[in-house]
Amino acid sequence: MPRESEIIARLKSRAPAGDDVLVGIGDDAAVIKGQGGKDLIVCCDLMVEGVHFRTEWTPPGTLGRKALAVTLSDIAAMGGVPKFALVSIALPRDCSSGFIDELFGGLFELAGASGVSIIGGDTSSSRDSLFIDVSVIGECGSGTAITRRGAKIGDTVYVSGSLGASALGLSLLEDGFRINDSKSSDARRKAVLKHLAHEPQLKLGRALGEARLASAMIDISDGLSTDLWHILDESDCGAVINAAAIPIAECVRSIAAAAPGIDALRLAVDGGEEYELLFTARPDDRRRIDELSIVCGVEVNAVGEIVGSRRLQLESGGSLEMLQPAGYEHTI
Amino acid sequence: MPRESEIIARLKSRAPAGDDVLVGIGDDAAVIKGQGGKDLIVCCDLMVEGVHFRTEWTPPGTLGRKALAVTLSDIAAMGGVPKFALVSIALPRDCSSGFIDELFGGLFELAGASGVSIIGGDTSSSRDSLFIDVSVIGECGSGTAITRRGAKIGDTVYVSGSLGASALGLSLLEDGFRINDSKSSDARRKAVLKHLAHEPQLKLGRALGEARLASAMIDISDGLSTDLWHILDESDCGAVINAAAIPIAECVRSIAAAAPGIDALRLAVDGGEEYELLFTARPDDRRRIDELSIVCGVEVNAVGEIVGSRRLQLESGGSLEMLQPAGYEHTI
Repeated sequence: MPRESEIIARLKSRAPAGDDVLVGIGDDAAVIKGQGGKDLIVCCDLMVEGVHFRTEWTPPGTLGRKALAVTLSDIAAMGGVPKFALVSIALPRDCSSGFIDELFGGLFELAGASGVSIIGGDTSSSRDSLFIDVSVIGECGSGTAITRRGAKIGDTVYVSGSLGASALGLSLLEDGFRINDSKSSDARRKAVLKHLAHEPQLKLGRALGEARLASAMIDISDGLSTDLWHILDESDCGAVINAAAIPIAECVRSIAAAAPGIDALRLAVDGGEEYELLFTARPDDRRRIDELSIVCGVEVNAVGEIVGSRRLQLESGGSLEMLQPAGYEHTI
Repeated sequence: MPRESEIIARLKSRAPAGDDVLVGIGDDAAVIKGQGGKDLIVCCDLMVEGVHFRTEWTPPGTLGRKALAVTLSDIAAMGGVPKFALVSIALPRDCSSGFIDELFGGLFELAGASGVSIIGGDTSSSRDSLFIDVSVIGECGSGTAITRRGAKIGDTVYVSGSLGASALGLSLLEDGFRINDSKSSDARRKAVLKHLAHEPQLKLGRALGEARLASAMIDISDGLSTDLWHILDESDCGAVINAAAIPIAECVRSIAAAAPGIDALRLAVDGGEEYELLFTARPDDRRRIDELSIVCGVEVNAVGEIVGSRRLQLESGGSLEMLQPAGYEHTI
C-alpha cells in the first residue's frame, strides 16, 4: 500500500470543501463554521492492533484511555475544547466481557475528566485484530482555530512538556519490560507510562487558542522533526532548532546515562507519540507564553526560530545539521 | 465476546449525557443541541472485512460507496440532512494504489451526489483485515430529529421501497454469483446490487423530518422484524404487521417463484441490510405520506399498526404469528 502521507495528499486533492469548511483534510482536525460565535472542530484517530498497539503489553483500560487521548490531543492542537465523542470498535471474537469493560472503563474515565460526552459509536466483531476509532467533536471561538499554516519568519518555536520518553518506552516494551513489572526502575516505568497513557495537553491548547497566542500548532504524534516539517510545509518557511534547548524527559536522561547505546537527543528529536504541543508564536509574546505555562501547570520551552529558507536545521555546539522529514509511520 | 446489543446497553448505562445531548447512545444517531435553529445529528458506521463484507465479491468502488451509504442511512432515519464526513480506514499492507483509488472513488462519488463534504479521517495499515469507519455530521431543524421513541397506539407502520433483495443478494454471493457475471439473470443482478450498493433514502428521510410526519423512525439494517422491535422497545408498545401488505422486491418474487426453497416473505420480514426507512405516523396523515412518497419518488407502503400490547405479530391469511426480535448480527 502507498504511504499514509501519499493517501492523504490524494484525498486532499479530490475533496471539494464546501463554504462551511474552514479547515479540511490535512490538519490535525477539520474546522466547520458554526453558529453563535463558535466553530466546530472535528477529528478522528484510528488505533489498530499490531500497528499502533499490542494487547500483550497494553492493559485494556490503558488502551481505551489512549484511543480517546490521541484524538483529544488533536483537538488541543487546534486550540479547541472537546465536547462529544463517538467510539467505533471491532473486537476479536475471543474478547471477554472483562476486557471490554476495562477498555471502556479507561475511555470513560478520561472522557469524564475531560468534560467529553460519549454520544454514540458502533461495535462489531473482528476476525483477528482489535480496531478502535474515536471521533471527537470540539469547539472554539469563531475563527480562532490554530492550524499548521500561520508560522511567520522570526516566530519562536515552542514545545510543551519534555520529549523522548514515549519512543524509549516503546523500545522498552519491545525489549520485554512491562508496566506492572515490580523490578523495573522508576525511570523505566515513567517512560513506558508516557507511551501507554500520555496526558493530552487540553488545558494548554485551549488557553493558547483563547489567548490567540500561537501562530501555528500541531501535536507531536510523528516526532518533533517530522511534525515541525508539517508546520514548515504548510507555512512555507524553515526553522533552526537549538539542540541544547530541547527538553529531554528526565527518565530518558537517566536511562541514557547508564546505557551508552541510547541517544537521548535523537529520541527527543525524532521520537513519535509524544502528544506534546509544538507551536510557534511571535517573539514579543514570550512573556505571555511563560505566564500561560505557569497558569496551565505545563512546562513550555522555546526550542528554536522560524526562518525564511525552506530547511529544518538542528544547531548543536556551533554546528548545523539538516533534519529531513522522517515520515514516521506508527508501526510496532 | 458479548453480543453487540449487550455492549451497547452497558455503554448506554454508563454514558452520562450532558445538557447539550438531546439523543445519546442507542438510536440511529446522536443529536446535539445546536445554534441558529438547527440541531446536529452525528453517527458512525463500521465495516469490517470478513464480518460485513468480503473483498472477493465486493468491487472496491462499491465497498467505498457502501461504507458511506450505511452511515447516510442513519442520518436519513433521523430525518436529517448529511453535511460532513470523516473516513477512517485501515488497509492490509498488500492493498494496491488502484484498489485504494477505486474505494475512495466510490465513496467520493456518493458524497458528491449527497452534498456531503469529506473533511478528514485517518489512515493506517492493518495486519490482516480491511476496516473502514465513516462518521457523518448532519443537521435538522431544532427539536425535529425523529427517534425510535415516539410511536403511539393507533399509528400506522410504513416502510419505504421493497424488501428481501439484500438478504437474497448476500446468499447469492455466498453461492458464488458475482455482480459482473454476464450469465446472471437480471433479477439476480438486482438482488446482489441491492446488497452491495443500496441507495440511502435521504430525500424521503429529510422530507419526513421537515414535514414532522413520522412519530418514530429507524432504518432497516437488522431486518424489518428486528428493527421494528427497536421502535417498539423504545416506544413501549406493540405492532401487528399485515403479511400481504409487505412490499417484497420484484427480483425476490421472481427468483423465489422458480426456487421452492426460497421463502420470499421470510426474506422480506427478517432480511437485514435493506437500508429502507421504517417509520410510524398518525393514521390521518396517510394522505400526506402518500403525497410525500410521490414527491420523493420513493414507494412507501403501510404495512401494519401500532398496538398497546407489547407484542409484534404478523397477520397472514387470518392467523397471527408472533415475531421475536431476531437480533440479527452482521456476519457473513
